[in-house]
Amino acid sequence: MRTRFQQGLDDLRQKLLRMGGLAEQAVDRARQAYVERDLTRCQMVLEGESLINTAEREIDEAAFDLLAMQQPMAVDLRFILAVTKINSDLERVGDQAVNIAERVMDMVELPATDLPVDIARMGAAVSAMVRRALESFIEGKVELAQAVLEMDSVIDRMRDDAFIQLVKTMNARPEAVRQALDALLVARNLERVADHATNIAEDVIFWVQGADVRHNVQTEGHETPESSQASSKPTHT
Amino acid sequence: MRTRFQQGLDDLRQKLLRMGGLAEQAVDRARQAYVERDLTRCQMVLEGESLINTAEREIDEAAFDLLAMQQPMAVDLRFILAVTKINSDLERVGDQAVNIAERVMDMVELPATDLPVDIARMGAAVSAMVRRALESFIEGKVELAQAVLEMDSVIDRMRDDAFIQLVKTMNARPEAVRQALDALLVARNLERVADHATNIAEDVIFWVQGADVRHNVQTEGHETPESSQASSKPTHT
Repeated sequence: MRTRFQQGLDDLRQKLLRMGGLAEQAVDRARQAYVERDLTRCQMVLEGESLINTAEREIDEAAFDLLAMQQPMAVDLRFILAVTKINSDLERVGDQAVNIAERVMDMVELPATDLPVDIARMGAAVSAMVRRALESFIEGKVELAQAVLEMDSVIDRMRDDAFIQLVKTMNARPEAVRQALDALLVARNLERVADHATNIAEDVIFWVQGADVRHNVQTEGHETPESSQASSKPTHT
Repeated sequence: MRTRFQQGLDDLRQKLLRMGGLAEQAVDRARQAYVERDLTRCQMVLEGESLINTAEREIDEAAFDLLAMQQPMAVDLRFILAVTKINSDLERVGDQAVNIAERVMDMVELPATDLPVDIARMGAAVSAMVRRALESFIEGKVELAQAVLEMDSVIDRMRDDAFIQLVKTMNARPEAVRQALDALLVARNLERVADHATNIAEDVIFWVQGADVRHNVQTEGHETPESSQASSKPTHT
């Protein structure tokens, strides 16, 4: 039974990694779509959304099945709860990519104009955050997750700079207001992707630190409902 | 043991309702702060954020403890998972209220100006959505949750209208660009609160419909790990 449960945990991890791959791909495509004013990539992002939504539901149900299957150890429980939370964040990363694609579709109908914002650079930084957050999950490493948390304030600053510069543009060049607004909203969407990457990193820390603590106080394999009743109180770090 | 578990479920429900009250209050205050250009209410929203964050952690830990305590029945499992998801959404509702408060703080430094957007009305509609979503949770009623889903498209339309009108303002009145932008971002924040209310309603449906299905296939009390092993596959509606 334990083996089947472990197999289920491995499947859950694999499913979440595939979901992470889809979300990361959506952000990359949306960013490229912006930079190259590319409607084909916008369409790919929009079509990819339903794949991501389906993956989200499957992961939630798989997590539910695992929780229903047997009494998980605390470390496994924290892992499963972390997966359900990361799952929600990845789905919302996909939503942000869709928002960006929609902005790009608005933008390409307008004349191209130079704007004082480097969306390509900001997008690359945000993609790197998502990738690192997923790596911290794969490797279960708090240090990698911490690095993601530190990157978040860099992105916030980029967003603030974009905001200030683009408002100036709107004031000085009324004919470019809509393009500047599209860029500003894309910068905000990217910042929200960074927020989701931050949430993922925090969930990894919740899972790993909880797991470490549990390893210290308990070395048995599968808990019975009675033993878990007594020992279920997690120690928080 | 079952009684203690039930008590834990009731506590979890109460905690989530208090959290919901805090989030709803934050949105109401942020909306009033906008309408009345009231820095005191902005400050209250900013200070309330740490209360909400603390409440979020407590609810997550309480849910974790319940899952670790004993093998929950499928209906209870769905309830606990729904609570953790609703919890995340309520925390993000609080974040949106903070974003609105920050916009208002930017706005009151600028000259007041008439703008073609009814933030008060949109805010009231969004607050009503959050309240209904919480009611659907309290009463476990799918119909109430469905009503929330239907309201979401009304809010989306309000946001789109605001967007169109405010871009026109920015074009026509360069001196009002920043105020119009603040209003536009507040409209977006309100729309995101509506999205979270929608997520909450969907989680209520997941919980209640799963529960109904489980009631049909199973009438015993507490599942043993062996029986749940066999019957854990939920039927999806």
